[in-house]
Amino acid sequence: MTNERLIYLPLGGAGEIGMNCYVYGHGAPGRERLIVIDLGVTFPDMDTTPGVDLILPDISWLEARADRIDGIFITHAHEDHIGALAHLWPKLNAPIYARKFTAAIGRHKFQDQGLPKDAITVVEPRPETIKAGPFSVQFVPISHSVPESSALVIDSPAGRVVHSGDFKLDPAPVVGEAWNPASFEAIAAERPVKALMCDSTNVFTQHPGRSESTLAGPLRELISNAKGMVVATTFASNVARLKTLADAAQASGRSICLLGRAMRRMVATAQETGILTEFPSTISPEQALEMPRDKVILIVTGSQGERRAASAQLARGKYLGISLKEGDLFLFSSRTIPGNERGVGRIMNQLSEMGVILQDDAGGLYHVSGHANRPDLIAMHSVVKPQMLIPMHGEHRHMREHARLGTDAGLRSAIVTNGMMVDITGNSIVPVEKIEAKRVYLDGGMLIGAFDGVVRDRIRMALNGHVMVTLLIDENDELLGDAWVEVMGLAERGRSGKSYSELLENDLTEWLEGAGAKLLRDDGRLEEGIRRTVRNVSQAEIGKKPEVTVVLSRLQDE
Amino acid sequence: MTNERLIYLPLGGAGEIGMNCYVYGHGAPGRERLIVIDLGVTFPDMDTTPGVDLILPDISWLEARADRIDGIFITHAHEDHIGALAHLWPKLNAPIYARKFTAAIGRHKFQDQGLPKDAITVVEPRPETIKAGPFSVQFVPISHSVPESSALVIDSPAGRVVHSGDFKLDPAPVVGEAWNPASFEAIAAERPVKALMCDSTNVFTQHPGRSESTLAGPLRELISNAKGMVVATTFASNVARLKTLADAAQASGRSICLLGRAMRRMVATAQETGILTEFPSTISPEQALEMPRDKVILIVTGSQGERRAASAQLARGKYLGISLKEGDLFLFSSRTIPGNERGVGRIMNQLSEMGVILQDDAGGLYHVSGHANRPDLIAMHSVVKPQMLIPMHGEHRHMREHARLGTDAGLRSAIVTNGMMVDITGNSIVPVEKIEAKRVYLDGGMLIGAFDGVVRDRIRMALNGHVMVTLLIDENDELLGDAWVEVMGLAERGRSGKSYSELLENDLTEWLEGAGAKLLRDDGRLEEGIRRTVRNVSQAEIGKKPEVTVVLSRLQDE
Repeated sequence: MTNERLIYLPLGGAGEIGMNCYVYGHGAPGRERLIVIDLGVTFPDMDTTPGVDLILPDISWLEARADRIDGIFITHAHEDHIGALAHLWPKLNAPIYARKFTAAIGRHKFQDQGLPKDAITVVEPRPETIKAGPFSVQFVPISHSVPESSALVIDSPAGRVVHSGDFKLDPAPVVGEAWNPASFEAIAAERPVKALMCDSTNVFTQHPGRSESTLAGPLRELISNAKGMVVATTFASNVARLKTLADAAQASGRSICLLGRAMRRMVATAQETGILTEFPSTISPEQALEMPRDKVILIVTGSQGERRAASAQLARGKYLGISLKEGDLFLFSSRTIPGNERGVGRIMNQLSEMGVILQDDAGGLYHVSGHANRPDLIAMHSVVKPQMLIPMHGEHRHMREHARLGTDAGLRSAIVTNGMMVDITGNSIVPVEKIEAKRVYLDGGMLIGAFDGVVRDRIRMALNGHVMVTLLIDENDELLGDAWVEVMGLAERGRSGKSYSELLENDLTEWLEGAGAKLLRDDGRLEEGIRRTVRNVSQAEIGKKPEVTVVLSRLQDE
Repeated sequence: MTNERLIYLPLGGAGEIGMNCYVYGHGAPGRERLIVIDLGVTFPDMDTTPGVDLILPDISWLEARADRIDGIFITHAHEDHIGALAHLWPKLNAPIYARKFTAAIGRHKFQDQGLPKDAITVVEPRPETIKAGPFSVQFVPISHSVPESSALVIDSPAGRVVHSGDFKLDPAPVVGEAWNPASFEAIAAERPVKALMCDSTNVFTQHPGRSESTLAGPLRELISNAKGMVVATTFASNVARLKTLADAAQASGRSICLLGRAMRRMVATAQETGILTEFPSTISPEQALEMPRDKVILIVTGSQGERRAASAQLARGKYLGISLKEGDLFLFSSRTIPGNERGVGRIMNQLSEMGVILQDDAGGLYHVSGHANRPDLIAMHSVVKPQMLIPMHGEHRHMREHARLGTDAGLRSAIVTNGMMVDITGNSIVPVEKIEAKRVYLDGGMLIGAFDGVVRDRIRMALNGHVMVTLLIDENDELLGDAWVEVMGLAERGRSGKSYSELLENDLTEWLEGAGAKLLRDDGRLEEGIRRTVRNVSQAEIGKKPEVTVVLSRLQDE
């Protein structure tokens, strides 16, 4: 018993914004019972992950210990906290706990994947307590940009941990529960908090966070002054924002049309779960087409410039019969996530070419963040009064700055990154072990490892082009015909003005003729020589060294 | 004579930030004599242009009329104004005019490409006047973030045009000429300005631009308070910033080491041309290594996160023997250009892991923009008093907003995008013709068209992977052996757990056996069938539809 310990191990989110996945364990070293908090995804990009559909945490460490997992707890319904659940749960097969709205979103995902919906148990907020092995876990309502976000109170024989989840301190969040410092004071008064694991995303934002409710006035004014059709885009999961937009639309006599599957699903789920009440009735795209333009607002997906979302489709021309015109207003009630600037810019320029009036949040009137800013983090620390502060959910620089805030306030703080297991049984944060915490890619229907070489090969083909050389070698190890060359992703003609693939064929044939019979019997040396010849000729002719695939077809005696 | 006209035709920059290239013409329609202002580049990205080295304007329209070009004028030495000069000049072969510093940069490029340096003529500022066919052109000093930036006064029989180039209104630019409204008032007083073609990049920035000289105090304070080594990154061409940083370093007793080829070349060129005087002497990386850390500042390239630049190399570990340590300070005296956030973020996090103190311009103390903000544009309009305002250098939304500012001020304004030729002989902006104004890619050693399909194929391989199928067909149109399949950029094993390429080979063999002799004689149908089979099997097995290359090797009677 004295030998037991409390461990903390982030597998995602501690070193990045997104892909949250955190593990707590309690028990004898190597035999701890485990709970998992969140199973989120992050999103691919062309630079590093072309063709990939989603990026998931590598849970092989957990998978090997699946029999020790007593529960999976999902703090809220954002993709970077719940997006990997349906993909990875079959490997863990542990009970899942979430509040009603989050559970409903999770069950939709389970249904889509043909998984049992009853794997997810709906939990009421504290004081309801879930016993999970040595842990007792309570969900504490906290404001964020999606309904029913929760911090978790995690009790173990070694003490109490508060896991903040994503949060902001919003006294009037429009939909859902307001920030209530008293509830966190009560938690700290009830039992001293050993450690606070705390959201770090906005640590560099110096001003206190603004309330969702501050947007109602500006949005109402903007929409009521618009002359043509209004289109507003925001995150589908920001149900409070949808409500504010819809209320503003209704106040100015506009009917509401929701475009985009995610948008409709969120509103339906929020209504079904009783979160969203008094949401005005909506109209279909067909109905919207029949109404005067100044009587309609479209609330649409695609605030991040996603090419297939409603925003991008409207910007390219038509979506479900609806097209925009000069004098219409397009509102980005959103912030562009770093990395998405080009996609969002493309949409803005396409809309500009149509004469559509653009409004974004540059002036700070039409969007607020869902995360705690620096002063809010300091407030949270001082309400929870933890012995230790462990920053989570942030890039390294965010976590480092957050740890510095903690240290400045006299808290024991440490940067614990993905794969670092720490022991927090005692009065300090003690590193225990480094786990391989890589990433896994969902690629079409397959999960592939980030270091399998698959994506590396795609990037190489994209950067360098691809040359395929086919050689026929007969039963006597003699060349049958010339080398065939196919080229993909490279210039058709080179510096000499000749066909690049013909030039390669000629130079390869020449090289092969001089190569000698012995080489033709040696696959390895032959391939290597062909590869080298192709690269040298290409460098001279087109100034690039392509990827080369060699197919040696050896005819066999039949 | 009455039939002559003055035309304006942007070929780049009017619809994007970057790749500036503008044409003016005067004469009988279709026989105008032409001048070209700037030949710039823009930069590729993985999303749209993987593997491409540079993006250049498509000047085929100019090339076909090269005998009518009387001069090429380069406003300043930024890559988006001069970067394509050495690549495209051989197609135009017209005299090039630039001021001393710009010409020196241009001549370096010509030397690198083995072109005649004397193609570039050095010009003094107004009143010096270059006669170029029907045009008289003067360079007017104007402040920007590179030395000797110039607006151009372009006189023609049809009137005077002011072409702003890139500019800001800086009364104290540290290096180079201050904004001098009197010189522009004199230009307008001398001859009324028919049209102002004006930089639009910062039209959405509401506050007046800040002077380069405001940075000296904050930079000096920051650097003198630093305890370890200081590294500062900024654009190499921002010679004023280099001077401010060097002065601040000198004031705090630090020796200056310049890292990165572009950085050293810029300083050397600025010194050779007499632009940069009293720049402190610099030390080599070897000398820097031997000095106490708190006596050194490195001024380095790579403020945009470029993977091969000095910043990225220092962040990854070591560069020329120098490595950073806990307590060193890394300053981004720069703004991250949209689209580069991920690269810059990567560097920041790598530095954070080393314990390096990061300082960027989030607080607005360590960087100022080189472009005119909204109030500055309004000031420029009112000093030049043009009859017409034609916004240039901006995305569509910037040019549209800028045109709106012009219209609000009572100026005739129109959005003229790349490829739109307008006639500005009379009192209005009259569209004449739409030229195909595409882009050209420098790819290795080749110029390839943006719509040649080369880059499209690269993107497809990156997104979908590549499957190569080889078939041998003998003299009797019978299959020789089985199909060979090679796979690149796709999972090795599929849902069934079997080798994906073997599975493809088996399914192809099966399909071919059932296909019948007639199909084996028809290359087109055979390839189509193979492609379809590969895609269908892949969709079922790995959930993706790859690119497919089919190599049919037909043995011929010898």
